[in-house]
Amino acid sequence: MLQVRPFDIEIGQHKVMLNLADARERGLNAGDRVRVRTKGAATTAILDTTTQMVKPGEIGIFTEALKELKSPTSVDVLPAPKPASLCYIKKMMDKQKLTEDQIRAIVQDIVDNNLSEIELSAYVTASYIHNMDSQETEWLTRAMIETGERIHFDTHPIMDKHSIGGVPGNKVSLLVVPIVAASGLLIPKTSSRAITGAGGTADLMEVMANVEFSAEEIKEMTEKVGGVIVWGGATNIAPADDKLIKAEYALSIDPYSQMLASIMAKKGAVGADSVVVDMPVGPGTKLAAPENGRSLAKDLIDLGERLGIRVECAMTFGGSPVGRTIGPALEVREALTVLENKGGPNSLKEKSLSLAGILLEMGGVAGRGEGYKAAEEILTSGKAHKKLMEIIEIQGGNPQIKSEEIVIGENCEDILAPTSGYVVAFFNKRLVELARMAGAPADKKAGVIIHKKMGERVKKGEPLITICSSSDWELESAAKDAKRQMPIVVEGMLLERYPRITEL
Amino acid sequence: MLQVRPFDIEIGQHKVMLNLADARERGLNAGDRVRVRTKGAATTAILDTTTQMVKPGEIGIFTEALKELKSPTSVDVLPAPKPASLCYIKKMMDKQKLTEDQIRAIVQDIVDNNLSEIELSAYVTASYIHNMDSQETEWLTRAMIETGERIHFDTHPIMDKHSIGGVPGNKVSLLVVPIVAASGLLIPKTSSRAITGAGGTADLMEVMANVEFSAEEIKEMTEKVGGVIVWGGATNIAPADDKLIKAEYALSIDPYSQMLASIMAKKGAVGADSVVVDMPVGPGTKLAAPENGRSLAKDLIDLGERLGIRVECAMTFGGSPVGRTIGPALEVREALTVLENKGGPNSLKEKSLSLAGILLEMGGVAGRGEGYKAAEEILTSGKAHKKLMEIIEIQGGNPQIKSEEIVIGENCEDILAPTSGYVVAFFNKRLVELARMAGAPADKKAGVIIHKKMGERVKKGEPLITICSSSDWELESAAKDAKRQMPIVVEGMLLERYPRITEL
Repeated sequence: MLQVRPFDIEIGQHKVMLNLADARERGLNAGDRVRVRTKGAATTAILDTTTQMVKPGEIGIFTEALKELKSPTSVDVLPAPKPASLCYIKKMMDKQKLTEDQIRAIVQDIVDNNLSEIELSAYVTASYIHNMDSQETEWLTRAMIETGERIHFDTHPIMDKHSIGGVPGNKVSLLVVPIVAASGLLIPKTSSRAITGAGGTADLMEVMANVEFSAEEIKEMTEKVGGVIVWGGATNIAPADDKLIKAEYALSIDPYSQMLASIMAKKGAVGADSVVVDMPVGPGTKLAAPENGRSLAKDLIDLGERLGIRVECAMTFGGSPVGRTIGPALEVREALTVLENKGGPNSLKEKSLSLAGILLEMGGVAGRGEGYKAAEEILTSGKAHKKLMEIIEIQGGNPQIKSEEIVIGENCEDILAPTSGYVVAFFNKRLVELARMAGAPADKKAGVIIHKKMGERVKKGEPLITICSSSDWELESAAKDAKRQMPIVVEGMLLERYPRITEL
Repeated sequence: MLQVRPFDIEIGQHKVMLNLADARERGLNAGDRVRVRTKGAATTAILDTTTQMVKPGEIGIFTEALKELKSPTSVDVLPAPKPASLCYIKKMMDKQKLTEDQIRAIVQDIVDNNLSEIELSAYVTASYIHNMDSQETEWLTRAMIETGERIHFDTHPIMDKHSIGGVPGNKVSLLVVPIVAASGLLIPKTSSRAITGAGGTADLMEVMANVEFSAEEIKEMTEKVGGVIVWGGATNIAPADDKLIKAEYALSIDPYSQMLASIMAKKGAVGADSVVVDMPVGPGTKLAAPENGRSLAKDLIDLGERLGIRVECAMTFGGSPVGRTIGPALEVREALTVLENKGGPNSLKEKSLSLAGILLEMGGVAGRGEGYKAAEEILTSGKAHKKLMEIIEIQGGNPQIKSEEIVIGENCEDILAPTSGYVVAFFNKRLVELARMAGAPADKKAGVIIHKKMGERVKKGEPLITICSSSDWELESAAKDAKRQMPIVVEGMLLERYPRITEL
C-alpha cells in the first residue's frame, strides 16, 4: 500500500505520480496506465514518475482521481492495459482505415478524458496528416453526436446556421436567427465564444442576455419563441469538440475531416434538418478564392446527406468586415440598428438577408429564389426585431433594449488619415488585433468602429477608425499600435497609376 | 499584478495556470505561451486555464517556473510568441523538408523543455508518419549530439557497440567491452536500463559496480583502464533522447529516422570512431528476417559515414535468449562464468566473440577475418576477465567478485515439463514477462533460468525453467502464471508427423 499525497490540482485527467524507484519496482514507466485501488473505490489513471516530488512509499494523486477515489489515505497500484483506442490511433498513423467501433472508441475516450495529452495530440496530428475518407468522417460525426447530449424536437423542420469564420464583425446571426424564427421555423442556434477573434456570436448575445443554458432549456425556449442564441460550450453537446480544440489550438492546426465532423456534429446533436453554412472568402479568411470553397462545400453537403441533414453553403464576401464594427457591444448596437430599421450598413443587411433567405427557402416558407425577399419583408416589417426581443426576454435579458442604449467603452480615440486619397489597403487581421488590444472580447464594450472601407475617398485628418475601450491604458496602447502600423492604408498618388481602383 | 499560488509539483516544464476569466481578459487561451515577470526575474511558460483551481486575480505556478522566478508573491503576465520550432513541426506534418537550423531549433527546444507534451507528441507522431531523408537525419543526429555533453578523447580510435534489442538475456556487452579494452582499444560503453525488458546492460553492470558517472568521469576511467560500462541516463549525453523516449513509449511507436539518430547521437557524443551494431533477427525481435535488417544496416552505415563514424552491423540469431538466463544477477553470473573460463553457454560465448571480433578488426588490432580468433584468445587467456575486474574496480565495485558469489533470489521454483517430448515452441516475450513478474529488473536477484531450448529433448517432470525472486509472493504469482500459459511448449506426438523438427 502507498501513502497518498494529495495534489489538489485539476489537470483535466486522472493522473498519479510515483517515485521512480517504486515505479521501477512495479515494472511501470511514465505514461503507463495504472489501476489505483482503495477500499470500496478504484480508478484508472495515467502514471507519471518523479525522483523528487513523491518519496518512495508515497503516491501523488491529482484532484480528478482523488475525487473518484474519495480522498483515500492509502492505495494500491497495479498495471492496467492501455486503452484500445490507442491502437486505433496507431492505425491512423499507419494510414489504415478505421471501423465505426474503433472511431467510436477514440471519441468516447476523448470525451471521458481517458487519453493523455500526448495521446490526444497524436490523434489530432495523425488526423491532420491523414484525412479520413467520407465514410470514416460520417462515423466520426455520429460518434461525436452520440457521446454527448442531444436535443430531440417534436416539431420539424429544425433550421441551423454555421459560419466557418475568418471575417471580422460577422454579427449576422443576430439578424438571421430572429428572421428565421419570425417566419415560424425553429432555429436553436448554439454559438461559440471568440478564441482568437474579437467576439463570437455567444460573446455578442451575452451583451443583451444570458447565453449559458442546458440542452433541455434550449429545447424548451426554442419551442416557445422559435429560436435561441446561446453558447454551445455551456451544454454537453458534442463534448469531444472542446477537448480536440485544445490540442488543435496548441498546434495551430485544423484537421480537415475533424473540422467537417465538428461542424456537423454540433448541428446533428441539436436535431437540425437544414443548415446553411456561411463560407467567407477573401484574403485573411480560410478561403482565398471561391474555388477553394467548392470542395469544402461539396464535402459538407455530402456529409450532411450521410447524416440526413440538408446543407447549403453560401460563399460570402470576406475581404472586409461585415458592417462597420468589431467588438461585442459595438456589433450588437449595429445589428439592433438594422433590426430597428434605423439604417445600418448595407453589407450587414444584405449578408443577413441572403443567409436567412436560404434558410426560409430550405424550410419551405419561401419559394426557391424568393427567400431574400421574404426575409427582407420580415426585417422591414419589424417582425424580426420583435422576435429578437422575445428571444432576449426568454434568455433573461431586457426586451426593451434599444440600439442607442447599448453602452460602448467611454475611452475612444479616432485614428486619422495621414493623407488624402483612397483606401488602397485594408487589413482585417490588424483590426481584430486592435479590438483585442482594446480589451475585446472580455471587455464587451471594447472594439473598433470602421469609418472608411476599401476604395472609399478620404481627406487628410478624417477619422479612418475609432477605437473604444473601458480602460484608458488599453485604449492608449491600442491607439499607439494602430498609428505605428495602420490597419487601413490611404494613398493618393497610386490612383493615377492604377485607374482600376478609381472605379471602386 | 497576479497573486502567486505556488503549485509545488514538478511536471517537467514551465507551466502556469490562470482563472479562465483572467485569461480571457488578457486575450489568452490554454496552450498559449506567456511571459511571467516579477521584479528581477522573468520566464516563459505554457498557460493552462481553470475555473476552479485558481481564483481570478491569482496565478498557479508549478515548481520549475517557481524556481526560475525565485518564488515571488506576485507576478505580471504577458502574451509571448509560440516557439519557432512549432512552425517547423507543422512543416514536418505538411511533409516539407526542414533545414539544419530548423531541426536544431526543434531539438534545442526539446532539450530545454520548451515544448509542451502536446507539441512534443506532434513532433514524434509527425516524424513517425513522415520519415526524414538522410540529410535531415544527419542534421537531427548532429543536433542531438551538440545539444548535450560530449566526450573528446585524446587517443583514438574509440570503439563502441550498440544493440537494437529485442532478444532476452543479451548480456554480451559484459564480455565484448572487456575483450575490446583488453586488446588495447578504448571502449566507453554507455548503456540503458530496461524499459520493457528484464534488464538492460546498465541494470546488469549495477549488480557488480556503480553505473552512474558524469561524462568527464567516463573519459577519465576509459583512459585509465580502456573501457567502462555505465548508464547513459546519468550523463547529459544526447539528452533529447530521454525526452523523446517518453512520448514514443506512451504512444508505443519508434519513429525510424529518430531511432537512427538516437543510436548514432549517443555514439557520436562519446567520440566513437567505429561502432558495431548488434541486430537480433527472429520472431519477437524488431527484425523478423535478415532481409528486414539489410535496409536498416545500410541506413546506419550511411548515417555513420555522414558523421565520420565507421559502422558495421551484425545480424545475430534472436530466435531464443542469448545464453540461458534472464534477469540482472542471473545474467551477470552467467557472463562471469564464461569470463572465468568455467564453461557457460555457447550461444553467449559465440555471439560475444563475434561482436568483439568485428571491433578488433575495425580497430586494426586483428586482421580482416581474424577478429573472432583474436577475441577468443583474449577470453581464454583470462585477459578479458582481468580487464572486467579492472573496470569493476574503477567503477567502485569489488574486483575480487566470483561468478558463484553473485547472489540470486532465494525463492526459486522449477516449472516442470508436463509431458515427454521435444521443445516445439519457445516464447521469448513470455520469458521476459515472467522475469518481470518475479521482480526484474528492479529486483536484481529476480529472473528466469532456461533449462531447455528449442528442439531439445525433455522428459516429463524435468524442469524447463526455474524462476527466482527475492520475494515469495512475486515468485508465487510468476510461477502460477508460467503454469497457466507455458513459455516453452513440449510435445511428443507432433514429432512423428513433422520429421524436420527431430533434426534439430
